Amino acid sequence: MVVEIINVGTELLRGCTINTNAAYLAEECTKLGFPTAYQSVVGDEEKALMDALGTAVGRSDVVILTGGLGPTKDDLTKEVLAGYMGRKLSEDKRARADMKELFKKRGIENIPASNLKQALVIEGSTVLYNRNGTAPGMIVKADGGKCFVLLPGPPNELVPMFEEGVAPYLRKMGKGASVTKTVKVCGIGESMVESEIIHLLKDKKGPLVTTYAKSGEVHVHVTARAENGKDAEKAVKPVVKEIVKHFGDKVYSLDGNETLEESVIKHLGKKKLTLVTAESCTGGLLAGRLVNVPGASKVFQQGFVTYSNKAKRKTLEVSKDTLKKYGAVSRQTAKEMAKHAAIGHNSDVAVAITGIAGPGAEDTGKPIGTTYIACYYNGGTEVKEYLFAGDRAKIRAEAVTAALCLLREVVKV
Amino acid sequence: MVVEIINVGTELLRGCTINTNAAYLAEECTKLGFPTAYQSVVGDEEKALMDALGTAVGRSDVVILTGGLGPTKDDLTKEVLAGYMGRKLSEDKRARADMKELFKKRGIENIPASNLKQALVIEGSTVLYNRNGTAPGMIVKADGGKCFVLLPGPPNELVPMFEEGVAPYLRKMGKGASVTKTVKVCGIGESMVESEIIHLLKDKKGPLVTTYAKSGEVHVHVTARAENGKDAEKAVKPVVKEIVKHFGDKVYSLDGNETLEESVIKHLGKKKLTLVTAESCTGGLLAGRLVNVPGASKVFQQGFVTYSNKAKRKTLEVSKDTLKKYGAVSRQTAKEMAKHAAIGHNSDVAVAITGIAGPGAEDTGKPIGTTYIACYYNGGTEVKEYLFAGDRAKIRAEAVTAALCLLREVVKV
Repeated sequence: MVVEIINVGTELLRGCTINTNAAYLAEECTKLGFPTAYQSVVGDEEKALMDALGTAVGRSDVVILTGGLGPTKDDLTKEVLAGYMGRKLSEDKRARADMKELFKKRGIENIPASNLKQALVIEGSTVLYNRNGTAPGMIVKADGGKCFVLLPGPPNELVPMFEEGVAPYLRKMGKGASVTKTVKVCGIGESMVESEIIHLLKDKKGPLVTTYAKSGEVHVHVTARAENGKDAEKAVKPVVKEIVKHFGDKVYSLDGNETLEESVIKHLGKKKLTLVTAESCTGGLLAGRLVNVPGASKVFQQGFVTYSNKAKRKTLEVSKDTLKKYGAVSRQTAKEMAKHAAIGHNSDVAVAITGIAGPGAEDTGKPIGTTYIACYYNGGTEVKEYLFAGDRAKIRAEAVTAALCLLREVVKV
Repeated sequence: MVVEIINVGTELLRGCTINTNAAYLAEECTKLGFPTAYQSVVGDEEKALMDALGTAVGRSDVVILTGGLGPTKDDLTKEVLAGYMGRKLSEDKRARADMKELFKKRGIENIPASNLKQALVIEGSTVLYNRNGTAPGMIVKADGGKCFVLLPGPPNELVPMFEEGVAPYLRKMGKGASVTKTVKVCGIGESMVESEIIHLLKDKKGPLVTTYAKSGEVHVHVTARAENGKDAEKAVKPVVKEIVKHFGDKVYSLDGNETLEESVIKHLGKKKLTLVTAESCTGGLLAGRLVNVPGASKVFQQGFVTYSNKAKRKTLEVSKDTLKKYGAVSRQTAKEMAKHAAIGHNSDVAVAITGIAGPGAEDTGKPIGTTYIACYYNGGTEVKEYLFAGDRAKIRAEAVTAALCLLREVVKV
C-alpha cells in the first residue's frame, strides 16, 4: 500500500512553519508498516492543489492531506478535493453541534458565520470529529479504491485525530497486520548504532528496521507486516532481542512512549532517591528536561545554574584553589559541584555538568565541546570527560542526554 | 522567478528527520523575494527523483535539491541530475584537495575510497566548496536558462553554503534587487499581530509582509523587490515604520540575527546590571536561554531551579506562611522568589517564574497554564499573571519568553 502526504499551506512555502506534521505522519505510517513514498507541499491555491492531487492519485493508494480546513477564504483543501472527486459538500450535524459547544466554552453563544463552512464535509466520507478545534477531519474513499485523508493543520488537533481515527483505519486497510516495537538506546551515537546493526537495516527480507536520532539518543523501530498480528509479532521478536542483546545496558526503554528522563525519574522514584542538578554550560537544560516529567517533584527537588565562577564558589562551595588550579571546565570542578550540591542540599544523588559549548573556548586551552559530567551517589563521585561536536545548542543538548546516561550507569537504574 | 525545493532522503519519508532544511530555505528564499512555489520530498531512488525533476523543470526556474551527496551507494542526487541533464561528472581538484585536508585534520592520511566520488561534480557547474563537510554543493545552469542548486543535507553544511554561495547567486539571477527588513516583536501573540496588520499582510501591491511565530515572539519580515536596491529600500521603509510605530515597546529588535535573549543581555550589560533567575515550572529553561548568548556570563551570574516547596523555602527563603496561605503558584510566591534571589545573591535584577505547566493542575484550584512571573529591580518587584495555552512544553516555552519580555519592560531595555 503506497501512502503519500500533501501538506497544504502557504506558510510552509514561506518557511513560517517547520513541517513537523510531515515528520510525525511519516514516522507513524512507518510504524504501521507503510513508510510514505512521497511528500509534497503546496500553497493555499486551487490549481497547485489540483495538480498535486492528480500526481498523487497516479502513484499512491492513500493520500493524506493536512491543512487548509480553517474558516477563511484561503482554506480550500476540502473544497478542491470535493471538486476533484466530483462530490458535494454538506453539513454534518454533529460537527456543527460540536462546534457550537466549543464556542460556548469560549463564551461565544453563536457560531461565527465564517466558521459555519467548517461543518461541511465531503459526501460519503467518514467524519473525524475534532476534540481540540473547529475543523473536523475526513476519510474519503474514492471509487477506484483509493483513499484520501484530510486532517487539520494544528499539530494538537492533527495528532490525536490521526492516532484515534486514521491509524486504526490504515491498519485495517492494509492487508494483514503490522507490529512495531521500539528499542531506545542512549550513550551511543546514531552512526555507531547504524554501523553495528547495518545487517538489520539493510535486510530487505526481514522486518523494517529504522533508526531515529534524537539529540544524544537513538530510537530503533522494528516493524513487520504479516497476515496476522501473531505472525508479525513473531517476526519482530528475534530482531528486537538481537538489538537489545547487542546494546545491553545502553537500552533504556522498550516503551515507545517513555522518554529518557521519565525512565530515570521512574527508577529513582522506585528507589526513593532524591536528585539535585548543578549546571554550568547547559544552564538549566538538564533541570528543564527533568521538570518535563509529570510528577517529577518527588524525585527532583532543585537545580543550580552556576554559570559564573563566583556562583560556583558561593552556591556550590567549589574551592577557589580548584577553580584556579584546574579551571571551571575540569574534572575536579565537576566533581566538587556534584558532591557539594548533594551534600549541601540533602540529596541522595547529584549530577553536575561543566563544559565549553562555544563559540569561544574562553582561554581554557581545551577544545570547544569539552565537557565534564559528574554524578555523586552513595558517598562516591564518578566523573567522565566528553568531547561533543556541533554548535552551541547541539553540544548542550548532547551534554544533557549524556548526563542522564551517566546517572543511569552510576545509580544502576 | 519561480523557486522550488526537492529534499532527497529516505529518512525524511520515514519521519526520522524533521525537514528543517525546507523551512530554512523557504524562509531565506522569501527574504530574497522568491517564496518557494512547491516543495517535495523523494527517497534515495533514481526513478522517483527523475520524475520529481521532470515535474519541477516544467513549472519552476530554480530547483534547489538537498541531500543525497554523501559517500554511500544510496546517495545519488548528483548522479541522477547529471543523467537527467545529459552531462558528465568529473573530479574537481579543489574539492578533492579540501577533502584531503579535512580527513588529515581528523587524523586520516588518505581519503577513504568511498568518499572519492564526493569530489566529482557536474560538468559546467559552479562548485560550492564545503568548509564543514566532505560534499561540495553545485549550481548548475541548464541550457534553457533553468537552474539547479545542489546542497548537502546536514544543516551545518547547508546553511553556510546557502548564505555564502547560493543567496548572492539568486539575488543576481532575479531581475532587480530585493530588500528584507525584520521587525521582532514580543509580548503579543501571532494571531493578534496578524489581525492588527492584516491590511499589510493582504496588500498585493506593496511589499510582501510575512509573520513567523517563534514560541512567544513574532518576527515580521517585510520584503520588496524593485529595479534597484534603493527603490526596494524605499518601498520597505514606510511599511517597517508603520509596524514599529504600531507595536511600540513590544518591538525588541530590528536586527534579523539578534535573539530576544541577546537583546536583553546586551542591554543589561550596557547598564552594567547583573541578573539571577529563579524558576519553578520552567525548570531552568530561562537560564538555558540566557546561557545561549555567547559571553552572557558577565550579566547572568546564576540561576536557581526551585521545583519543590522545600527548595523554595531553603534556597530562596520563600516564607512558609506564603506557601501555605497562597500556594507555590501565586503572585506572592513569585514576588518572594524574585526579591530573595536578587537580594540574597547580590544581583541587581532577578526574574522568577512559578506556574502550572500541566498535565495535572495539582490541586491548586487554578487552571493549567496559570503562571506568575516576577521581576525585581531597583528595590521594587513587579508581578504579572499569565494564562498560557497548549501542552507542557509550549506553556513553559511561552513562560520563558514572557519572562524576558517582562524583564525588558521593568528594566526598560
